[in-house]
Order: sequence, then structure tokens, then C-alpha cells
Amino acid sequence: MELLQDLNWRYAVKKYKSDKVDEEKVDQILNAINLTASSCGLQPYRLFVITNEGLKLKLKAESFNGQIAESSHLLVFAAYNKITTQNVQDLVSLTSQVKNVSIESLNGLFVSIDSFFKSRTDEQNRHWAEKQTYIALGTALIAAANLRVDATPMEGFDPELFDNLLGLEKKGLHSTVILSLGYRDEANDYLANTEKARIPLEEMVHKIN
Amino acid sequence: MELLQDLNWRYAVKKYKSDKVDEEKVDQILNAINLTASSCGLQPYRLFVITNEGLKLKLKAESFNGQIAESSHLLVFAAYNKITTQNVQDLVSLTSQVKNVSIESLNGLFVSIDSFFKSRTDEQNRHWAEKQTYIALGTALIAAANLRVDATPMEGFDPELFDNLLGLEKKGLHSTVILSLGYRDEANDYLANTEKARIPLEEMVHKIN
Repeated sequence: MELLQDLNWRYAVKKYKSDKVDEEKVDQILNAINLTASSCGLQPYRLFVITNEGLKLKLKAESFNGQIAESSHLLVFAAYNKITTQNVQDLVSLTSQVKNVSIESLNGLFVSIDSFFKSRTDEQNRHWAEKQTYIALGTALIAAANLRVDATPMEGFDPELFDNLLGLEKKGLHSTVILSLGYRDEANDYLANTEKARIPLEEMVHKIN
Repeated sequence: MELLQDLNWRYAVKKYKSDKVDEEKVDQILNAINLTASSCGLQPYRLFVITNEGLKLKLKAESFNGQIAESSHLLVFAAYNKITTQNVQDLVSLTSQVKNVSIESLNGLFVSIDSFFKSRTDEQNRHWAEKQTYIALGTALIAAANLRVDATPMEGFDPELFDNLLGLEKKGLHSTVILSLGYRDEANDYLANTEKARIPLEEMVHKIN
């Protein structure tokens, strides 16, 4: 399976060359992200794709992850702060259009999803939205590797700074995880030629027959 | 990109045929999961792959997701309850073996990872482990689609029941998300031939140049 080769090829690049990634390839990665499986179909996150050098430098700030500023593209995955009735209405409206059925016929769907999120705290729903975001991160990593675009998923950044500089709070979003895209500088990246360390499959998986 | 076709092909199957998925294909999916990107390389989750019919029936219990019992294979993604110093030691030990370097030379790595997790609450680390698990879910969904194996990611299950029946608590794990594998019963699945509803890419993505 080519996917196994892609997953073996990728690693979290520490040092990038200055080469830029073609917008066409970036758009393929973004399209893949938008097709990611999403519970209830809610897609409770938005993506910010940053090539502006000044902004990337400001976002890097004190982070130990130089890739924030030094990569070709920086993707910021920003999850919803809460799940609102409006979010569920938007989903129902989209579903009605795409599937060519009336909004009224989707009322059962609306009530079940809306009441589910209302039965939980905003904190629980925020946590849920973050987990959904990580499915999209998984897709992005595979899409990039498939196109032989290097990538570094990062949690080591200042989320408050990101939220401020990107104006996320007033959009009802918060920065959750980030991903740089670019091309590995093989000669200067100490991680470029080391073996991938993974536990044996027998340790990861327990089969119950 | 074939990946876009795979993502368009897949959907959350509601009704499966009784056909079983070959173990060889399941193993490819499991191998892909084990190669999933993981922060610090910690892989803070384990997988349970259940084909035992009696156990699947017990796990389904009151859930509205009939697929728990009716699919070929049920995958349970179980995240770590907390991150311990032993977990970090195991990672360092594995890294030392795979990269053929001494444990002592990895002491800086050990201290930085261990102190990071110790600086946070168990609740924060548990949440973190769950998010990492969802990256693996993203990989699993793509691996299955690539092999034209159908899949249904599900959060609608009784985690306490799963934890009890699988003995997860004493393993330091908790069931986080589940995934059924099998083959769609196209004639009897109301979702089989409906359009995928996704927001337009312009709504998902904000580019800052």
C-alpha cells in the first residue's frame, strides 16, 4: 500500500529549505482536509494558511519551533470554542441544499444533534471540537506526504498569541494545533536520516477473536 | 490525487453486509495506524480489534449504532489515562534501540518530555492523549478507504461498558473512539448514495499572504 510508504517517508521536519510549495499542491492538501470525516458532519474548525513572512515571524515569537517562521506555509487549525444552535442550523441548511431535501424533513436530525450538544458543557464541546480537528490534522499529514511535501505538526506554540494575532476570539475560534509545510533541508536537519521509532505492532494491537 | 477520490468514496456506513474483511487488509490498516504521526513519538493509545461476535453484541448494548455488532471488525481506540515517567522512559529506551544511541545521550530528551507532562494535570494529559488518538483515527479512515474497506467512526457508545468489558482501567486506558470495518450494504443503507455535504473550501480556509 502506497500509504505505508508515504507514512514511512514523512517525519516531523526540524529544518526547512527556503523553497516554496506550489499553491496547487497546497490547495490539494486543503481540499483533502475539507473532505475529512467529521462527527455529525459539523466540521467544527477553520483553517488559516499563512505565507506572510512578517506575520509568521510574529507568531514564532519565543517558540522553540523555528519552523513556524521558516517553512513555506503555516497552517493553523482553529477549533470552535463552543457548539451553537446556529452551527447546527447551518449544517442542516447545507445538508438540505446538497441532498436536495426540505429543511423540515431534517427537523429530527436538527433536534437530535442540537439537543446532544446542549446536554453537555461548553468545555466538553470545546474538547470535542479539538479532537475532531485532530482527525483533519491526520488527513493533512497524509495528503502532504502523498505529494512529497514535508510537514511538521506542532503543539509547541503560544495559543494566546496566535488567537490575538489572527483575531480568532471574535470568530469563536481558538488555535488548536499548527502544521508547517515546505521541503526538508536534509543536510542540516539532524532528524532527516534517523530511523522512525515505533512500538512493535503486537504491542499496539490486541486482537480479540 | 488518489487520496481525494478515496475521501470522496468513503462515508460513515450505517448498514453493513455480512462479508468479512480479510485479515491481510485489516493488518495493513493496523500498520498504517502504528505509523501515525505522534507528538514526541509517544503513541499514547492502544488498539483493540474485536471480531468475537458475543463480545461485539455485549458492547453494542443500548447504543443506536448497530454497526458495533454488525460489522466485520470493531476497532476500539483506547487512550492513556495519564502520562507517566515510565511512558517517557519506554519511549527513550525504544529510541535508543532504533537509533542505536546510548540511553545517556537521550537524557536531555527524557528530561524535557518528562518535565513537560509533569507540569500539567492528569486531566490535561488525558485530553492530550485523546487528541493524539484522533490523528490515528484519521489515518485509519484513509487506510480503509484506500483499500476500499468501509468504515464507520463512532462516538455513540457506552465508554464505561467498553472499559469494563475490555478491562481497560487496569491497563491505564480508556475507550476514546471506535471504528467499525466491513462492506456497505448499498441496497439497505439510506446514506449509501447521498451526496457528501461539506462547506465550500473558501469558507473552511482563510489565506493570509
